[in-house]
Amino acid sequence: MKLNDNTAIVVLHCPDRPGILSAVTEFINKNKGNILYLDQYVNREEGVFFMRIKWDLTLFTVAKENIENEFRTALADRFGMTYRLYFSDVKPRMAIFVSKMSHCLYDLLSRYAAADWHVDIPLIISNHPDLEHIARQFSIPFYHFPITKENKAVQEAQILALLKDNKITFCVLARYMQILSDDFIQHYPNRIINIHHSFLPAFKGARPYHAAHERGVKIIGATSHYVTSDLDEGPIIEQDVTRISHLNTVEELVRKGRDLEKIVLSRAVEKHVERKTLTYGNRTIVFQ
Amino acid sequence: MKLNDNTAIVVLHCPDRPGILSAVTEFINKNKGNILYLDQYVNREEGVFFMRIKWDLTLFTVAKENIENEFRTALADRFGMTYRLYFSDVKPRMAIFVSKMSHCLYDLLSRYAAADWHVDIPLIISNHPDLEHIARQFSIPFYHFPITKENKAVQEAQILALLKDNKITFCVLARYMQILSDDFIQHYPNRIINIHHSFLPAFKGARPYHAAHERGVKIIGATSHYVTSDLDEGPIIEQDVTRISHLNTVEELVRKGRDLEKIVLSRAVEKHVERKTLTYGNRTIVFQ
Amino acid sequence: MKLNDNTAIVVLHCPDRPGILSAVTEFINKNKGNILYLDQYVNREEGVFFMRIKWDLTLFTVAKENIENEFRTALADRFGMTYRLYFSDVKPRMAIFVSKMSHCLYDLLSRYAAADWHVDIPLIISNHPDLEHIARQFSIPFYHFPITKENKAVQEAQILALLKDNKITFCVLARYMQILSDDFIQHYPNRIINIHHSFLPAFKGARPYHAAHERGVKIIGATSHYVTSDLDEGPIIEQDVTRISHLNTVEELVRKGRDLEKIVLSRAVEKHVERKTLTYGNRTIVFQ
Amino acid sequence: MKLNDNTAIVVLHCPDRPGILSAVTEFINKNKGNILYLDQYVNREEGVFFMRIKWDLTLFTVAKENIENEFRTALADRFGMTYRLYFSDVKPRMAIFVSKMSHCLYDLLSRYAAADWHVDIPLIISNHPDLEHIARQFSIPFYHFPITKENKAVQEAQILALLKDNKITFCVLARYMQILSDDFIQHYPNRIINIHHSFLPAFKGARPYHAAHERGVKIIGATSHYVTSDLDEGPIIEQDVTRISHLNTVEELVRKGRDLEKIVLSRAVEKHVERKTLTYGNRTIVFQ
Repeated sequence: MKLNDNTAIVVLHCPDRPGILSAVTEFINKNKGNILYLDQYVNREEGVFFMRIKWDLTLFTVAKENIENEFRTALADRFGMTYRLYFSDVKPRMAIFVSKMSHCLYDLLSRYAAADWHVDIPLIISNHPDLEHIARQFSIPFYHFPITKENKAVQEAQILALLKDNKITFCVLARYMQILSDDFIQHYPNRIINIHHSFLPAFKGARPYHAAHERGVKIIGATSHYVTSDLDEGPIIEQDVTRISHLNTVEELVRKGRDLEKIVLSRAVEKHVERKTLTYGNRTIVFQ
Repeated sequence: MKLNDNTAIVVLHCPDRPGILSAVTEFINKNKGNILYLDQYVNREEGVFFMRIKWDLTLFTVAKENIENEFRTALADRFGMTYRLYFSDVKPRMAIFVSKMSHCLYDLLSRYAAADWHVDIPLIISNHPDLEHIARQFSIPFYHFPITKENKAVQEAQILALLKDNKITFCVLARYMQILSDDFIQHYPNRIINIHHSFLPAFKGARPYHAAHERGVKIIGATSHYVTSDLDEGPIIEQDVTRISHLNTVEELVRKGRDLEKIVLSRAVEKHVERKTLTYGNRTIVFQ
Repeated sequence: MKLNDNTAIVVLHCPDRPGILSAVTEFINKNKGNILYLDQYVNREEGVFFMRIKWDLTLFTVAKENIENEFRTALADRFGMTYRLYFSDVKPRMAIFVSKMSHCLYDLLSRYAAADWHVDIPLIISNHPDLEHIARQFSIPFYHFPITKENKAVQEAQILALLKDNKITFCVLARYMQILSDDFIQHYPNRIINIHHSFLPAFKGARPYHAAHERGVKIIGATSHYVTSDLDEGPIIEQDVTRISHLNTVEELVRKGRDLEKIVLSRAVEKHVERKTLTYGNRTIVFQ
Repeated sequence: MKLNDNTAIVVLHCPDRPGILSAVTEFINKNKGNILYLDQYVNREEGVFFMRIKWDLTLFTVAKENIENEFRTALADRFGMTYRLYFSDVKPRMAIFVSKMSHCLYDLLSRYAAADWHVDIPLIISNHPDLEHIARQFSIPFYHFPITKENKAVQEAQILALLKDNKITFCVLARYMQILSDDFIQHYPNRIINIHHSFLPAFKGARPYHAAHERGVKIIGATSHYVTSDLDEGPIIEQDVTRISHLNTVEELVRKGRDLEKIVLSRAVEKHVERKTLTYGNRTIVFQ
């Protein structure tokens, strides 16, 4: 995504019926929008139409502030669409949550520093002070919120206020070793991305590498998913795996796993930032 | 493995201590055996030494019928080894169990027909008559044992008798859709190989592709393991995976899965036939 | 693809411009066709629009024999489309070419015997007699055409006549160890599928496993492509790879490679049979 | 590798003959060394024995300064071994060479900062000033040596002097876009690690992603290898691949490729740092 483009993206789903695709493309064509990408998919079993469309606004005859209104009137109401409209000049704002492990944080920040992503990262939040030096390396404010059973509700309220102040649009848990409360999650539905260090649904919960070693699997994995109130059960965005053998100790699984975790998390974040994900039920549609 | 070679293979494990490797290699060297392969591994956490060694018997000075005795006296007793000794002129004898799906059966038989493996397949057993024509294509006796709750014990006894008559050394469940009784399994400990159509331990039990689709995973897998009395929990020999997307229906997962299943099962059978597997606890050491 | 469905498929490309997608979907919708799949893609660099669309003909108001004409008049001429129209009740007819290795042949025939594919295989052609017994196992006519430098032109003419007699629509070279003449290839442009036993463009030509071993690569591959007059340079349909190590001898690479070759070739054939491939320049678009 | 261990590692090869393994393990055992890892492999075709062995020196009865001498006298001379002896308290010293792309540099430094590797990185060298800020982030001296055809010899001499002053033991070219002279390479034989952004030997030379896109491959890769005077032809340490499709532009290949490049390079560096690599002819043995 180039930083200086002037485009709109709509991601939508609605009950399938003839004519949706024509109607959407005609809406853009007749208003002189230039379609840059279009990806659609019909779930035949459930009768649902999914679509992502991106168009250039340079010659678009509908003024930017009227697009949402016109789209709703002309299309969304008519077809019963659930949709989101994004503009390329509005950058997503991302908060990173960490604990003590640095590999995912470094991977995210190195892409950010290289301007690979069209995103702002105004702050890093942690329940431990260990990684503050990394935040400082990249000149990003670091906030330390130690969490205990007693202070959890209070601390989460403070974090939420901080996120609001910083106009955060989504959160990334980069090996954040704290379970967020249901209440917290409700503030960012399908907008909190977690990395779990196993090939879910295998080895849910704590210490998945120990469990994988114990079970004697020949392949380990990592899974990035949106966080829901059901622990490790949210819609999966991305997974990847690597081969192991009986020779590998738990410590070696942990080490091999780190490379999976960071790449899988960053790929998921990239898809989210590019507005290529759409959750439906407990699944994630990942557009191309 | 060339069919006309004259070799011995020992696969062993024992408590780790200095000198095992030297002792084994010296035993072979001093008797003029030519070591062809040696693979060893020490599990430091549990203090266990594992080894597979293969040597040429052409100039070996110990007569074949005395090797086991000499090995036990000189090495196994001294180091407390659990071991198996195999000779290349004794072919493993394999029984295939099938139900209605042909893909794994064809994959096994096409390798057998091409003489890829040093194995005999004297018979195919099925709880359904559907695949008898394939057995006939390859001129292998086919036995049909329909299984009901009522006749299961009787039928299994008949199958066991048939296996015994045919000097079967191991069984391969090539999508055999019947659970073997504990009693049956006891007759072939770590010598019954199953293919499960999921990336275990994810999606144990029936209909794993439906479960994978429901969960929205981005990768599916197949797992080959030795059968134990604990369903889908036996020592894993081999696993592999393939990428899927939201576009894939359950039917497409089933189709993609078939290619995984047949290759994963055949790889596991190959490792077993080549005497490269060793189970320890609930894990499988797969030598190179 | 169900055998009893009544559908049409169009695969097309044309210069990109607004309105193509709308025009095609409207053509089908207004004639009461039910769109089952639609996949489209625009190559922005070259300004080319690609599409595959499949629709149910049950209620379609244009008679089958008129569809091509109407499609051409209403759409193809208007947009300058290069297209192919297929009907589900016309099965592709496939000829298999083999030499001495059986793994790809068995893989193709086992899928055919299981009715996985909507295809007919009326004959198998070989330059060696070795695999005739497999043809006989599956009751498929086998034709032996030994090829020498002297008789090549004559033999190819005979083969072409045989293909014509059998109304063959495409050919599959399942490790056929003979180079087809340019003249032969012209009869089946983009309709001869080959499997090359390397990850092209690495290790073109003969003995790629020896070359891979010599070069010390850590991964080997297989490539399925349409045959053109440029040896090993035709449009690639499918590739896959597997990891190797310094431990593997050439013979082991050959063995590991066989599993790649057969799966990669069968995947490519499947895509072709399902009318999901379209070549453009020297590349293959593979629709979903 | 724990930082505070007290171990020795020997990596060796020699003509194969009976008794090498016994002799090496006995040498360590009789001197009360505790063997921690042993990996050996015999290349039967060429008759060469390869070995990596690591042992604990805590109770070893040979004084550290005498080990090399004793090893040579007792073993190396007798068996004609080519070997290297390393001690865990001597850290490899690594120089990183970069140009303008930051992804590999960040990946290396983030592992270094997390103390994942037993290595020192005293300096970063570049032919462009662009990445100096990253060196500063990690407080590592950065040296800028602009290279022109005219000044190349002079600049390389200066760089070599700098490497010598810093006691550099190996160099890592982290997307360094300059070809080193043969003379330079001779100073670090098999001790300069490069990352090439293709699946070698496919797409040697410049602009491999453009070439891959042009050729229409379905998989792209990255290759890490030791640098020799033969460009892109040195012994391969590690490779990996990822799947692409006709949908991907060159720019997307470049982006996907970056994740491959950084992980493949870091894996190769890790193997080198852990003394697990050994080059023989033009191939790399990578021990486990």
